[in-house]
Amino acid sequence: MTDLNLMGQRASEARYQLQRARTYDKNRVLIRAAELLRERRETLLLANAEDIAAGEAGGMHSGLLDRLRLTDARIEAMAEGLLQIAELPDCIGEVLERFDRPNGLHIEKRRVPLGVIGIIYESRPNVTADAFGLCFKTGNAVILKGGSDAIHSNVAITGILREALRQSGITEDAVQLIEDTDRSVTAELMKLNRYVDVLIPRGGAGLIRSVVENSTIPVIETGIGNCHVYVDKAADLEMAAEIIINAKTQRIGVCNSCESLVVHRDVKDEFLPVLARSLRENHVEMRGDEEACKLIQDCVPASEEDYGREYLDYIISIRTVDSLEAAIAHINQYGTKHSECIVTGDEEAAARFLNEIDAACVYVNASTRFTDGFEFGFGAEIGISTQKLHARGPMGLKELTSYKYTVVGSGQVRP
Amino acid sequence: MTDLNLMGQRASEARYQLQRARTYDKNRVLIRAAELLRERRETLLLANAEDIAAGEAGGMHSGLLDRLRLTDARIEAMAEGLLQIAELPDCIGEVLERFDRPNGLHIEKRRVPLGVIGIIYESRPNVTADAFGLCFKTGNAVILKGGSDAIHSNVAITGILREALRQSGITEDAVQLIEDTDRSVTAELMKLNRYVDVLIPRGGAGLIRSVVENSTIPVIETGIGNCHVYVDKAADLEMAAEIIINAKTQRIGVCNSCESLVVHRDVKDEFLPVLARSLRENHVEMRGDEEACKLIQDCVPASEEDYGREYLDYIISIRTVDSLEAAIAHINQYGTKHSECIVTGDEEAAARFLNEIDAACVYVNASTRFTDGFEFGFGAEIGISTQKLHARGPMGLKELTSYKYTVVGSGQVRP
Repeated sequence: MTDLNLMGQRASEARYQLQRARTYDKNRVLIRAAELLRERRETLLLANAEDIAAGEAGGMHSGLLDRLRLTDARIEAMAEGLLQIAELPDCIGEVLERFDRPNGLHIEKRRVPLGVIGIIYESRPNVTADAFGLCFKTGNAVILKGGSDAIHSNVAITGILREALRQSGITEDAVQLIEDTDRSVTAELMKLNRYVDVLIPRGGAGLIRSVVENSTIPVIETGIGNCHVYVDKAADLEMAAEIIINAKTQRIGVCNSCESLVVHRDVKDEFLPVLARSLRENHVEMRGDEEACKLIQDCVPASEEDYGREYLDYIISIRTVDSLEAAIAHINQYGTKHSECIVTGDEEAAARFLNEIDAACVYVNASTRFTDGFEFGFGAEIGISTQKLHARGPMGLKELTSYKYTVVGSGQVRP
Repeated sequence: MTDLNLMGQRASEARYQLQRARTYDKNRVLIRAAELLRERRETLLLANAEDIAAGEAGGMHSGLLDRLRLTDARIEAMAEGLLQIAELPDCIGEVLERFDRPNGLHIEKRRVPLGVIGIIYESRPNVTADAFGLCFKTGNAVILKGGSDAIHSNVAITGILREALRQSGITEDAVQLIEDTDRSVTAELMKLNRYVDVLIPRGGAGLIRSVVENSTIPVIETGIGNCHVYVDKAADLEMAAEIIINAKTQRIGVCNSCESLVVHRDVKDEFLPVLARSLRENHVEMRGDEEACKLIQDCVPASEEDYGREYLDYIISIRTVDSLEAAIAHINQYGTKHSECIVTGDEEAAARFLNEIDAACVYVNASTRFTDGFEFGFGAEIGISTQKLHARGPMGLKELTSYKYTVVGSGQVRP
């Protein structure tokens, strides 16, 4: 039986040590953890082999098995990730604002850790090291609940992270893994308000929905992307085709890939047949409205539901519109507030699109695939927020922090 | 039957108009609403009289009746509040960051409205105008669910606000009041994720707990304060007494008042008997640990539960501690992360307290009663957040906003 209250208490105590930890000491832990991941490569591969064997025996399909699998390269990438986090500046303690009140109170707004972060994730074991690295660098204690598929790998990785902490004289409870794979434990974690400040789910739509619906702890919703590319009447059509092919096919199965195409009717006759050839060459199935189906022979009629879907697959929906306004309305209706793009040479149309589209990242003439912490230059990423509270879009280290006001007086009382 | 989906849809449409609204037009609505509140004073008083009569008939106790009552002065204060909001700068559209990536992408982080805000509140009808003013100035559409006690007053006030919108050519759906007083409607509102971006409960602990536990929409938790004053061994004891009396008694029943006193043992003998006299004069009941009871004749033994309570009454709990560390541990254990104060002349102790206490506002030598949007100079306040996500402490206009990234390229695709 997992005693979540005990884990919560430990995390809560750890956080006080972490919020005082010096940057130097935090970086030492990250570097030591990277070394240990490399040194213990064999152990990690063995643990992972158990998960893979269980997955194969259970009939797990190849895509999931691939996510689950650790390789030398992936272990090296985990180690490298921790070293990169060590290189990033420590934002904790930063004074964000400073002001004096007429009554002499001196107020500062200082950046502080969130406290205790709960991360609920699915099969990829590298999340264990990544999430720890980001939370730890920002002075947060973390409680991890990984997928049951990856339990052996996650136990092995967490063991190494805790060893690095121990060797550096910092509390091991900076990271704790819930080893119990029972789903009821996840349900219990989602109600651990007393100890956990924030929950971040990382995984598919089902996981995220479940956390949003059941958590009483504040949640940062991440990662569902029904991203659109809108080809305006003033678009450079060659550029539009390149952006669409890139956004759709450069990597399938990621939240910032394009799932839906919106085309202005003035350019549809010229554009759609040409684009269709490229999509076909890239094995992309097309599902469109009547106009699209007229122009593209092998286009399947799209159902209403298609426009709202995140396919994560070689499928794209196509909608033709009569105006920029109609394109904006369509995207705001069906989008998931993730990443949306307009291709246009018309500055006014671009400005309207940027203003009126309600999404974390709005693009003019660039692929939606750039919505990513590394591509934005944050040096790290814990996920992409699709909610509007706290953080929006790619979340790096700063998005794992809060602030407090410190108020220094000389005996002031309120009249 | 209230059709919440329809209200959500209307709010959602209104928000697109609001996010484009010019500052001038928003201010015009606020000024017109203030004028109308003044002009319709009689109508408002009549509507309020119905609520008061129903309250009296239902045996509502005098404190609640007082909160519910509108007077000329309170109507004037509502109007004045809207005019003040009109005077405040409009932060929407502000560019918070601006950076170029090596691939030529130009990224801006721009301040935008949250979108649709739901506010669930209790008996004070002035919240109707205040909440509208703050949400509207920041370009948000708002759906209000007030207490059933205040329904006639809220309907009258909302009618005036909508009239001001209509007269100014802006969609009335910028503010909608749920008139159905059935509790099931509140439950439904808390699940209206499709249309509502954020829920803010304003009221007592019961209301806030219910929203936190039942909402699937992101919530900003506000207002529960079990605030402590810690009297360090290096405290100026006269200053300490003044701060405690002010924080405890200047206004009872508010979240930033002091509920609990922590005293270092080195000063307890000298301090507690003197302080007790002042507390007694102010009719404050004392509940303390063994040491406190030894020194204060009429001090009642405190139960474990007392240390965690937000009395909102003429009661204070008293705990003696052996060290600064013990004081910090006690406060972090029992506090509600609202406002905590140390009284000390020792800079090192002050610095440790500021760093290690986990609360929205941490004070040195000043009353906790200053945790307030106006006292902080924000010019307005929607509430005091006690969570760490998004906003912490007093929330003014900026805390009702989010941001989006706009990314402008020239055909960039991801390699």
